[in-house]
Amino acid sequence: MSAANEQTYTLGDIVARFGGELLGDAQVRVSQVASLEKAQACHISFFTAGRFQKQLDATAAGAVIVGADARDATSKPRIVSSNPYAYFAKVSALLNPPPVIEAGIHATAQVGEGAMVAPTASIGPFVSIAQGAKIGARAVLGAGCVVGEDTEIGADTRLYPRVVIYHQCVIGERVIIHAGAVIGADGFGLARENGRWLKIPQIGRVVIGDDVEIGANTTIDRGALEDTVIEEGVKLDNQIQVAHNVRIGAHSAMAGCVGIAGSARIGRNCTVGGAGMILGHLQIADNVSVSSGTLITKSITKAGSYTSAMPFSSHEQWLRNAAHLRHLDSMAEKIRALEKKINEQERKQS
Amino acid sequence: MSAANEQTYTLGDIVARFGGELLGDAQVRVSQVASLEKAQACHISFFTAGRFQKQLDATAAGAVIVGADARDATSKPRIVSSNPYAYFAKVSALLNPPPVIEAGIHATAQVGEGAMVAPTASIGPFVSIAQGAKIGARAVLGAGCVVGEDTEIGADTRLYPRVVIYHQCVIGERVIIHAGAVIGADGFGLARENGRWLKIPQIGRVVIGDDVEIGANTTIDRGALEDTVIEEGVKLDNQIQVAHNVRIGAHSAMAGCVGIAGSARIGRNCTVGGAGMILGHLQIADNVSVSSGTLITKSITKAGSYTSAMPFSSHEQWLRNAAHLRHLDSMAEKIRALEKKINEQERKQS
Amino acid sequence: MSAANEQTYTLGDIVARFGGELLGDAQVRVSQVASLEKAQACHISFFTAGRFQKQLDATAAGAVIVGADARDATSKPRIVSSNPYAYFAKVSALLNPPPVIEAGIHATAQVGEGAMVAPTASIGPFVSIAQGAKIGARAVLGAGCVVGEDTEIGADTRLYPRVVIYHQCVIGERVIIHAGAVIGADGFGLARENGRWLKIPQIGRVVIGDDVEIGANTTIDRGALEDTVIEEGVKLDNQIQVAHNVRIGAHSAMAGCVGIAGSARIGRNCTVGGAGMILGHLQIADNVSVSSGTLITKSITKAGSYTSAMPFSSHEQWLRNAAHLRHLDSMAEKIRALEKKINEQERKQS
Repeated sequence: MSAANEQTYTLGDIVARFGGELLGDAQVRVSQVASLEKAQACHISFFTAGRFQKQLDATAAGAVIVGADARDATSKPRIVSSNPYAYFAKVSALLNPPPVIEAGIHATAQVGEGAMVAPTASIGPFVSIAQGAKIGARAVLGAGCVVGEDTEIGADTRLYPRVVIYHQCVIGERVIIHAGAVIGADGFGLARENGRWLKIPQIGRVVIGDDVEIGANTTIDRGALEDTVIEEGVKLDNQIQVAHNVRIGAHSAMAGCVGIAGSARIGRNCTVGGAGMILGHLQIADNVSVSSGTLITKSITKAGSYTSAMPFSSHEQWLRNAAHLRHLDSMAEKIRALEKKINEQERKQS
Repeated sequence: MSAANEQTYTLGDIVARFGGELLGDAQVRVSQVASLEKAQACHISFFTAGRFQKQLDATAAGAVIVGADARDATSKPRIVSSNPYAYFAKVSALLNPPPVIEAGIHATAQVGEGAMVAPTASIGPFVSIAQGAKIGARAVLGAGCVVGEDTEIGADTRLYPRVVIYHQCVIGERVIIHAGAVIGADGFGLARENGRWLKIPQIGRVVIGDDVEIGANTTIDRGALEDTVIEEGVKLDNQIQVAHNVRIGAHSAMAGCVGIAGSARIGRNCTVGGAGMILGHLQIADNVSVSSGTLITKSITKAGSYTSAMPFSSHEQWLRNAAHLRHLDSMAEKIRALEKKINEQERKQS
Repeated sequence: MSAANEQTYTLGDIVARFGGELLGDAQVRVSQVASLEKAQACHISFFTAGRFQKQLDATAAGAVIVGADARDATSKPRIVSSNPYAYFAKVSALLNPPPVIEAGIHATAQVGEGAMVAPTASIGPFVSIAQGAKIGARAVLGAGCVVGEDTEIGADTRLYPRVVIYHQCVIGERVIIHAGAVIGADGFGLARENGRWLKIPQIGRVVIGDDVEIGANTTIDRGALEDTVIEEGVKLDNQIQVAHNVRIGAHSAMAGCVGIAGSARIGRNCTVGGAGMILGHLQIADNVSVSSGTLITKSITKAGSYTSAMPFSSHEQWLRNAAHLRHLDSMAEKIRALEKKINEQERKQS
């Protein structure tokens, strides 16, 4: 956990700022968020599910954020919220403001001809900004970032170290991109001729909306002809692969190791669990939730939750069952044959 | 889409260069490729499948590349080709030549003792080239690339920013490696003794043939004793993991998120769909196609297409079906028992 | 294979150092390890399994390491060991010592205020070390590494080029981290409110024990409130994703492309095969082995081997079988109906 903050807030301050119902001493002062188990008197924790009641009873936290149905689950000073987890997020953001970063271009950074860097932006050591690129106000580029020709990066966007953005891409405002991400590499566009692959130039861009977050070592390829588009508010975890021409609708979120194949269109407010895969050229409706480890092989036109995970078992049990997976068709055929015979016998007997 | 090109070509120029049958005005001049929907008069588009007939009818493209079976699908000026997608690739490459990059070693680059950099090569800012490395003619190393000791990089090869190639590797000519790729890291070689893992030094190399393309953040490990080999013309998408001692045959292509485990041998002209996985020490014949999301657990000796994907369904339907996957063996046993009983009854009745 | 070593050892030297039983000429001198096929007289090879008997018979190796059950499988000079593969690892480490790297801070490296770098450490070109960081004795930081504020790196730890470690993390001694790995990026912590995602500050750290190895482009996220912990001796291959709050027990090993979701607790001495996935908040006991491509969706309380892989088949065969996977429930229902009818018929007949 990070060092104790110097800035502290009373519960009264917090409720004045974020709303919610305060029960107990408004003068209790907190400096950090913590889990129920680890919290001390200077911490505010949160409680959502009944199964943590024991931890709630034992907590040393100075205060707790609880849901409406748990308003009486503790006698501790508490803030009752209809969405305690979101409330907790806001309190934590208040107690953990991003570090103040000095504006300016590090002496070692290389800025190309005609590139425009806002005076309030912070450009770290060993950063390369190619000609024609534009870096917005208060943007932060960590050590070793590379920004290609004519790429634009919006205000208040933060690139952690070693992010690479190829040429002609557009990154919105308040975007966060974690270390090692690569935005705008060539899509996997190939044509086959005489047993060899011909490369198809990838002349589209990547366009990323405002308030997007992109995880470490995630890759988003530029479009083949048109653009790859990540709409506003999308959240992508680490090691996600987004192929060329994909569009991900606003406020969708995807966990680690997800892959989205070329030209897939994902709706708004979708979620994809870890290692979920969506094949190329599919259309996924708004509000679709894809389970972890699930491979989506057809378009989905209806909101809802979709799964294809094969259940695991002990290896011995799996050995007994898995062989049958290759013979389901003959199993179904045997059942049909049995049904036929039984029906014949019934006819004879009647 | 990238800025309009200044260089334009007539359809006559194009057919003179690449062949095909020209129908319509040879003087029509195009400056860029585009999709049927987005094309304007200065664009050439392409049409392959009947399901895009509506887009073809509505297109504003100045010209279209079509297959032999679609020679009359439009009255627009058109080029008829037996392989329209490959033809399109060539036209796009003509209209989108790679940017001219200035030769020379950037002032910030570090070049080790005894390293040889061709005078026509272009070495970007913050590049590290270790001693004994050799960089071929017209090779381009983007910002922040790292080339290990005694590694050789062939002529006309392009490394995008932040590629790392470890020591003693060999990269062919006209190879493209995208940002963040790591070539030649240690394979995962461990021996177990007394509950601890001993590291086995990885003393092989990575050897990459000519005309290979490697995607962003892809990793190819060096061999344990001998070499990991990627033969000529292989195309690897982003975030692929190639383990030690693997050999991938010429002109094979693999989509994003594929994993190839140690010592697997993949044939020539194979394809692996996104997130396909091939286990260690397997042999895969030439011309094998592995579907997306498929796990190959045994060697494949026969050309063809192979699949193991579990079909997805709504989560509710999945819940009803998935439980049975753990009981297929008893289901098969029940069917056998039924068959036995029915046969007995038939015997009695006859 | 790397260039011949100048340093050579007799079999007598080797047995004196590592034990084992020497059969044959103790004066045989070897300079490198090699496979049975490629070995020459100056090489020592190893033999474990009977299926390589032909290669053993044909080998030109000067000496061979063999298991106790193979002590008479060859008449070559040989060392008999109860764990020949581990023995081989030790001999290879003896013959392939890590390169000696010069201590000192490269002229281009940036070291922040208050950072402490041991005088015996080696800091490569274009490295950024933020303020308050501590780099231990004989640590090696390759080109372009980035070390965040207050992060500590233990003695004898080696970071290959372009490793990024965020702020306040702790890396043990003798750790190896391969190129492109990202340690300490924000976990994927989000709360939903009014259709938008609120970011939850990730205020935990990553704490990595001694003797851990981490593969290329692997990512390990910092904890949300508490720490993500990788215990001593853990070995992680390339492109593994470890989410926030995960704990991986000592001496566990995971192959490439594995994903461990948030707050999962993995026991000691576990192994996870390539592309294995473990969902969030699960507890995995000690000594659990998860097969390649397996998705673990529930906690595992018992040591053993677990699998969920769907067997692959030719695409045509798969098409015939896969459809039934969506109808297993009705298949089970049909079997129940048949059983009922047969039992009724039996009753009638008796």
